[in-house]
Amino acid sequence: MPENTTDRTTDRTAGLRRRLGGLAFGGDWNPEQWSAAVRAEDYELMAEAGVNLVTVGVFAWSKVEPERDRFDFSFYDRLLDELADRGITADLATMTASPPPWLTEEHPEILPVTADGLRLSPGARQQYCPSSPVYRDRATRLVEQLATRYAGHPALGLWHINNEYGCHVAACYCDVSAADFRNWLRGRYDDIDALNDAWTTEVWAQRYTRFEQILPPRTTPYVANPAQQLDYQRFSDQAMLTCYELEREVLRRHSPDIPVTTNFMAGFKPVDQHAWGPRTDIASIDAYPDPHDPRAHIAAGLAYDVLRGARGGDPWMLMEQAAGAVSWRPANGVKQPGRMRLWSWQAVAHGADAVLFFQWRQSRGGSEKFHSAMVPHAGPDTRVFREITELGRELAAAPDLAGSRVHNRAAVLLDWDSWWALELDSHPVDNLRQLDRLLDCYAPLFELGIPVDVVRPDADLSGYRLLVAPSLYLLSEEDGARLTEWTAAGGHLLATFFTGIVDDFDRVHLGGYPGPLREALGIRVEEFQAQAEGETSSLSVSGTADLWREDLRLEGATAELAFADGSPAATLHHHGSGTARYVATRLDPATMRDLIARAAAEADVHPVLPDLPHGVQAALRHGDDQRYLILLNHTDQPQHITLPKDTWQEHLLLAQTHADTLELPAHGVAVLRTPAEPEH
Amino acid sequence: MPENTTDRTTDRTAGLRRRLGGLAFGGDWNPEQWSAAVRAEDYELMAEAGVNLVTVGVFAWSKVEPERDRFDFSFYDRLLDELADRGITADLATMTASPPPWLTEEHPEILPVTADGLRLSPGARQQYCPSSPVYRDRATRLVEQLATRYAGHPALGLWHINNEYGCHVAACYCDVSAADFRNWLRGRYDDIDALNDAWTTEVWAQRYTRFEQILPPRTTPYVANPAQQLDYQRFSDQAMLTCYELEREVLRRHSPDIPVTTNFMAGFKPVDQHAWGPRTDIASIDAYPDPHDPRAHIAAGLAYDVLRGARGGDPWMLMEQAAGAVSWRPANGVKQPGRMRLWSWQAVAHGADAVLFFQWRQSRGGSEKFHSAMVPHAGPDTRVFREITELGRELAAAPDLAGSRVHNRAAVLLDWDSWWALELDSHPVDNLRQLDRLLDCYAPLFELGIPVDVVRPDADLSGYRLLVAPSLYLLSEEDGARLTEWTAAGGHLLATFFTGIVDDFDRVHLGGYPGPLREALGIRVEEFQAQAEGETSSLSVSGTADLWREDLRLEGATAELAFADGSPAATLHHHGSGTARYVATRLDPATMRDLIARAAAEADVHPVLPDLPHGVQAALRHGDDQRYLILLNHTDQPQHITLPKDTWQEHLLLAQTHADTLELPAHGVAVLRTPAEPEH
Amino acid sequence: MPENTTDRTTDRTAGLRRRLGGLAFGGDWNPEQWSAAVRAEDYELMAEAGVNLVTVGVFAWSKVEPERDRFDFSFYDRLLDELADRGITADLATMTASPPPWLTEEHPEILPVTADGLRLSPGARQQYCPSSPVYRDRATRLVEQLATRYAGHPALGLWHINNEYGCHVAACYCDVSAADFRNWLRGRYDDIDALNDAWTTEVWAQRYTRFEQILPPRTTPYVANPAQQLDYQRFSDQAMLTCYELEREVLRRHSPDIPVTTNFMAGFKPVDQHAWGPRTDIASIDAYPDPHDPRAHIAAGLAYDVLRGARGGDPWMLMEQAAGAVSWRPANGVKQPGRMRLWSWQAVAHGADAVLFFQWRQSRGGSEKFHSAMVPHAGPDTRVFREITELGRELAAAPDLAGSRVHNRAAVLLDWDSWWALELDSHPVDNLRQLDRLLDCYAPLFELGIPVDVVRPDADLSGYRLLVAPSLYLLSEEDGARLTEWTAAGGHLLATFFTGIVDDFDRVHLGGYPGPLREALGIRVEEFQAQAEGETSSLSVSGTADLWREDLRLEGATAELAFADGSPAATLHHHGSGTARYVATRLDPATMRDLIARAAAEADVHPVLPDLPHGVQAALRHGDDQRYLILLNHTDQPQHITLPKDTWQEHLLLAQTHADTLELPAHGVAVLRTPAEPEH
Repeated sequence: MPENTTDRTTDRTAGLRRRLGGLAFGGDWNPEQWSAAVRAEDYELMAEAGVNLVTVGVFAWSKVEPERDRFDFSFYDRLLDELADRGITADLATMTASPPPWLTEEHPEILPVTADGLRLSPGARQQYCPSSPVYRDRATRLVEQLATRYAGHPALGLWHINNEYGCHVAACYCDVSAADFRNWLRGRYDDIDALNDAWTTEVWAQRYTRFEQILPPRTTPYVANPAQQLDYQRFSDQAMLTCYELEREVLRRHSPDIPVTTNFMAGFKPVDQHAWGPRTDIASIDAYPDPHDPRAHIAAGLAYDVLRGARGGDPWMLMEQAAGAVSWRPANGVKQPGRMRLWSWQAVAHGADAVLFFQWRQSRGGSEKFHSAMVPHAGPDTRVFREITELGRELAAAPDLAGSRVHNRAAVLLDWDSWWALELDSHPVDNLRQLDRLLDCYAPLFELGIPVDVVRPDADLSGYRLLVAPSLYLLSEEDGARLTEWTAAGGHLLATFFTGIVDDFDRVHLGGYPGPLREALGIRVEEFQAQAEGETSSLSVSGTADLWREDLRLEGATAELAFADGSPAATLHHHGSGTARYVATRLDPATMRDLIARAAAEADVHPVLPDLPHGVQAALRHGDDQRYLILLNHTDQPQHITLPKDTWQEHLLLAQTHADTLELPAHGVAVLRTPAEPEH
Repeated sequence: MPENTTDRTTDRTAGLRRRLGGLAFGGDWNPEQWSAAVRAEDYELMAEAGVNLVTVGVFAWSKVEPERDRFDFSFYDRLLDELADRGITADLATMTASPPPWLTEEHPEILPVTADGLRLSPGARQQYCPSSPVYRDRATRLVEQLATRYAGHPALGLWHINNEYGCHVAACYCDVSAADFRNWLRGRYDDIDALNDAWTTEVWAQRYTRFEQILPPRTTPYVANPAQQLDYQRFSDQAMLTCYELEREVLRRHSPDIPVTTNFMAGFKPVDQHAWGPRTDIASIDAYPDPHDPRAHIAAGLAYDVLRGARGGDPWMLMEQAAGAVSWRPANGVKQPGRMRLWSWQAVAHGADAVLFFQWRQSRGGSEKFHSAMVPHAGPDTRVFREITELGRELAAAPDLAGSRVHNRAAVLLDWDSWWALELDSHPVDNLRQLDRLLDCYAPLFELGIPVDVVRPDADLSGYRLLVAPSLYLLSEEDGARLTEWTAAGGHLLATFFTGIVDDFDRVHLGGYPGPLREALGIRVEEFQAQAEGETSSLSVSGTADLWREDLRLEGATAELAFADGSPAATLHHHGSGTARYVATRLDPATMRDLIARAAAEADVHPVLPDLPHGVQAALRHGDDQRYLILLNHTDQPQHITLPKDTWQEHLLLAQTHADTLELPAHGVAVLRTPAEPEH
Repeated sequence: MPENTTDRTTDRTAGLRRRLGGLAFGGDWNPEQWSAAVRAEDYELMAEAGVNLVTVGVFAWSKVEPERDRFDFSFYDRLLDELADRGITADLATMTASPPPWLTEEHPEILPVTADGLRLSPGARQQYCPSSPVYRDRATRLVEQLATRYAGHPALGLWHINNEYGCHVAACYCDVSAADFRNWLRGRYDDIDALNDAWTTEVWAQRYTRFEQILPPRTTPYVANPAQQLDYQRFSDQAMLTCYELEREVLRRHSPDIPVTTNFMAGFKPVDQHAWGPRTDIASIDAYPDPHDPRAHIAAGLAYDVLRGARGGDPWMLMEQAAGAVSWRPANGVKQPGRMRLWSWQAVAHGADAVLFFQWRQSRGGSEKFHSAMVPHAGPDTRVFREITELGRELAAAPDLAGSRVHNRAAVLLDWDSWWALELDSHPVDNLRQLDRLLDCYAPLFELGIPVDVVRPDADLSGYRLLVAPSLYLLSEEDGARLTEWTAAGGHLLATFFTGIVDDFDRVHLGGYPGPLREALGIRVEEFQAQAEGETSSLSVSGTADLWREDLRLEGATAELAFADGSPAATLHHHGSGTARYVATRLDPATMRDLIARAAAEADVHPVLPDLPHGVQAALRHGDDQRYLILLNHTDQPQHITLPKDTWQEHLLLAQTHADTLELPAHGVAVLRTPAEPEH
């Protein structure tokens, strides 16, 4: 795995921040789909809406290179000049996300292949194998052209590499990928016996004698070797990262000061944001909370916190969100009035410096024509465009929010390797999804008003008082020891079931679960008990549990919660100066929230504001000279907020100033400012 | 698209009608599966049942051409002679629906290929690519032999081309099809840029530089270009039509006076009946309403009306129905006593001149052996065969029904292109099925007793007073203008949500939905709101709505129905001398029925009979000298009918005559006759 | 089909029984996954647990033949020596269940191919085509090596051929299989016309002119020919049997006195246990009842009775069961305390002489690491291992149970050909599963306390008084005549719906169902009526029916049960000295139990013990000198048992002796012994 070190020596984002003069506002813009007349109208409407950044060229390869090595940049030359004239910054894409028809016609071997051996057809997008040398070569040549041409263009503020890596093709199973996988394995394992040992190939007579025998985990008669599957997810992530880095190298060479990003996707498993983040200059994400889901903002908050963890808390960009409905759900709900504004500010509350949309103008044709946009099919005389212009005005009212940071004392642990391993087949319960398990813990924290970071177990944990490990299935002895030491040194740890089960190669830590944390937790688990579908167990106190329980023996811990039959459901162990809790089942949400509240209180971790009404979120951002309090009413009722006395004097969005109480309308937002506290 | 002109200059069906001397009665007969002794019994039973037409040879290719170019027609020579001897008319199939094993052995390349690249295996039926030149050549040679041999045979009354085109292979994705598709595209678009424009290929970098780059919409990493998908459905329909026309050309050459048909399938999307219909001499359909579905007769009625629209109201043939159960549903319900008779007469009520079955004698082996037949496994001493003979007797009692026609003043609009486009992916709601949307409107009309035609938007609409357009998603500016003019000239239009959204290439009409109908409807829609699964909205009056609603602005129209929050749910606009209604949601059935009743009343469109009991259907057929009233009791209770005074003097099925009231038993049928009204 | 004659001339199991000195106890052991230190601990724990038999080498091919023709048996040499030293008998596997990577690398053509044409990848297990000559050759060479080396080894007590034949690849559709299928067909049918007739190829123009045209039933445009499908299931079963017999031939040649087995799977359709059984020396089975299913023990009992029928009632081996949870269900429940013991004794009650587990020690890595084992991950200081040692102690307390037999006077008919045919497509109801239909009859018998055999219709039926035929769809005229004669001679037959419908080639017996049993049953069925999903019919008495009903005419029988509308639901016919009942629907369980109770009483067939509490199972085993009564409490309440006076004097497991009543704890077991009755 790449080292998880954020390159903090060179901050390439300051220049971008300076150009923008505040938060970024805008979106993907695809003027190649439109006439010059529409483009002219677009500029007027952008001015009206306060757009200061547009992403251009994401799907332009077939336009700029209509035949091999014949480049025609005239359209983008003019476009970038026009943007520069209007003071709009370009987030220029490298155009490599969708190879043009001539390339797949000439080289059908770059088309990705599924685990079933189906070579996918062009006609949509992302039709390439990430390991393909042909694809990589053609992509790099294109980026070389782009970088040469536009490195010094005055409109250029940011490079946007590719688009949503892995979105449709998270792994390719072709023979080229197979060869690349074997090379990757040769680098990872000293020799074939090391691999045999790591993959436990004695099971089912899978012992290899040469690397040449190894294949991707294509469709097999029965379940494929889990360590092979796990390594293939690692490899596939790396293959995409290699594509990214090849492009980044070209860009860096031509424009060393222009920051580089690539847009991740919220809640997307195949790409390890925490490994990629340090390789970007600024992290960015596409997030599409479901308007039909009343708790969508909580999952969105989690995604934002995960992303922020990718670059050690740096500000980030909401690269894509929808102005209204998307077009890929079974039923695509719209954002009711005010919701787009609320969720945009929520991103800022979680540390975003950019509020961007896919896309500026709704497409007339193609697969995304019913995906909403800042300018709908019906044109600017619409509710949506009016809300867009209002949002642009508001964001501009808080320019110095840009660059401010989020500081938290609680963290949730997430390890992409563990995520991959947790969701492999042949587990005690087959539907343990990492995101669900994260939300089991994250949602109570969110509702308690306790903001968290989401970090890897090998991150610097010294600043945290409370760590929560939700079903952290894969945990190395080393990371287990670090957590144990952190606890002994006074930390407060809470782990949930199926944590600490296997090593890096999906091999069980023997002698009783959860091996590397048994000392800290003071327990020993003999056996997992999958609960039947729909089966619920009572607790000895009020509350219930389901999905999973364990035969658990106390070895120093005490039972903090017990099942009705007296066996422990949750345990507490004092280890060194700290405490370690274990939750051996899925508790009902209220019981889980109480348990987490107790742990937080013991850890001296508190909500941003005390006694907030349920459904109101409060967040702090810390600038060099100022602090910001962002209040978000996620309910459909007005809410009354009491603020700390004489602290938050300045309301940025509301006329109201200097009061210690606040009426927040349904789905309302308030942003308040106060001078920064002196460093402590 | 082919011109939609029914060839009315040559009516080849009169001769057939003369031969039959009335309605056709019989079914598919496969004596090649049986011994001569069984065949002899079949003739006796056919005489007993009054069979006057049998379809023979549908699956006989492997029998008549057991090796390439070795033909053996001896079985069918004898069979046709026997039929002629007995006065039974042969509907002789062209035998091309299932190529023989030797052909796919010699030419595996004719086997169809799925979108996933799977070349399907022989061993079932319909194992051919419609674009295959080899298949077309071998099929045409066979038809040449058949036509040469039997053109003048005295038993021959009708040619039956192929069987249920597209039933199992609605589209082939092989390389031969790909080449054929490209040729079709070359004919459709002037040059590649016209295609790029039509397909909006700037989206996702799909711009083509040569036709050679284009492929069928095979399985892609993500959703394929919708215009490509739409064109592929058009092309696939055309490829099958070409097969049909190649065969028809041979038949016409050898037997210019023998009518030609091919059996369509009820509710079947891949074949555009309205485009094919004019290319037949008589339209025919296979219909298998589900006996477990208490509303199956309504969907069947819709299918019949759609078919009748394929040849401008001409009489048609019910080519296949089941005597009892089919064998391809999860649970194959039987037709309870009387139901087969009721549903047979229903077909006649909708304009059928033939009541035929699949099949005469239930197979002993093979895949359809549990599909019921006129003669069941248990033999003629069965309830089913007794009902068959009774039905044969009844149909013979009304010989001059044959040739009579249905005249309606209301029509529902259906456009196969729009159907194909409506059901593409990436829509606001992914489960909008055209047939469901049709039924939303058709079922209320059916229940109100208002019979309708189902026609294309470019049909001659001058005879209609009421037009209903259910989710007519694809609507060209031209057709929109025709509807607007028709309305202005005094027509009464009712369109439901998601109508008039895109042009022929699935490109949105911009500026507010529904572009081409905004003037007529007096509205402007800003945005679609997919409702969540299970979500129901209240109306301001009693009634509810679900599935879909819209942000709708009134621009001349008034709100005829509103949601509880006051926003319009249905609108009414007076346009010229007519009215135009729009329903922006899915209303509950009762509310929808009331709305349609209001529109019908304003259009001066009325039920066949007033005040019929719920569940009783009334239909009129108009002969040259007589009119027929068919009454169908779809309920399981006796129903009392009041007839117009002194009008229907003659009961064809019941002993009763000359009364103005009628007791219709549960599932009962009455057919009444009266002299034709003078022309007006 | 192979002759169904159990080779009783040579009983090779006596030697094994002598070696073991009683019931076998142990499990699969995979020491190749572990260090020598762990192996040493294993020996100690085995001694502690009383293990006397271990299965070794099941997945060892890649270890013993790491490259082609390079054999390294050192590990197994040492292992077998160690076992011999410790008096533990080896059930030595032939290691052919999972070919090594080098073999599929060298010969990818041995990989199996799905009906969709997908060649499966190595990386799991069972990655071979059973028809592959290369696989067969390499497997036979390996077995030759093994047999040569270990034939005389003192540890060897049993050969274990392959593993769970067909588990993941029940049929291969590759071209090699296709050629093998054609050869098999040439042997089965005299000429191609015989095949055409048997397969009814006139349907859908499938008539073949040469065997070369025939293919496996690969994915077709629509449903494939049912007789072809049926023959392919027969062929696939035979192809696996050929693999088995090739290995057995080698073993028999080298070690004529060592018994041979292969482990079948409970409830597994692709392998005809009743055809294979006579080809084993002792039948064995893997059974994994679902701990979440409160009726799992009934289905398990059925599986055991089916297996026992495979060798005419001989004792058999429970080759694999789980100590706790498995790892392949959606939610893998554990066996609660006492359940493993209960279910182990249940196997003995049904005639098992061996109680074995998969596996001895829970794997650290690989796909089955969360499958429980006798020694869990947490080690021997666990509830599970304590229960294992207790069970070992108990089983050793009843050594002379080994070899004793089960004698029953009632039997259920099961015919694998009929099972295969019943579950083909295009039936009146598509979800008729043979196992469900068996359980409809077996569960009432089980609950009534009436133990049964499960035998083929062509078995020797003379010893039975009651025969039950649950949906015995395929029934030849010959077998129908045998059942008719058996009934006439005084037997009591009860058949359920969809029995006796087709012949060996899936061709319907004409003239009214169920052709070959109409005389015995005194009925004639005209038509099947699939009931709608969720539809329930009332009976004229209390009780209901669903799923299916029939239009049934009485021809000598009387209606024993009727539907509310008076039509017969179940019939009774006196035929000769016997009776024949027919159940024309699925009755609710209580009504079905009453009906079966009546039939049993008339047949003079009675429960093992009268008046047992519900949920308590009683079983008898008959030794040469002793009889054993096994009592199993499947409920979670203690149960009071009254025993026949002065009969069962000796309790083998409980301290209690010489009492005529017994308190059986929840999930408790009692084993009692009494001298054998004199032969009668």
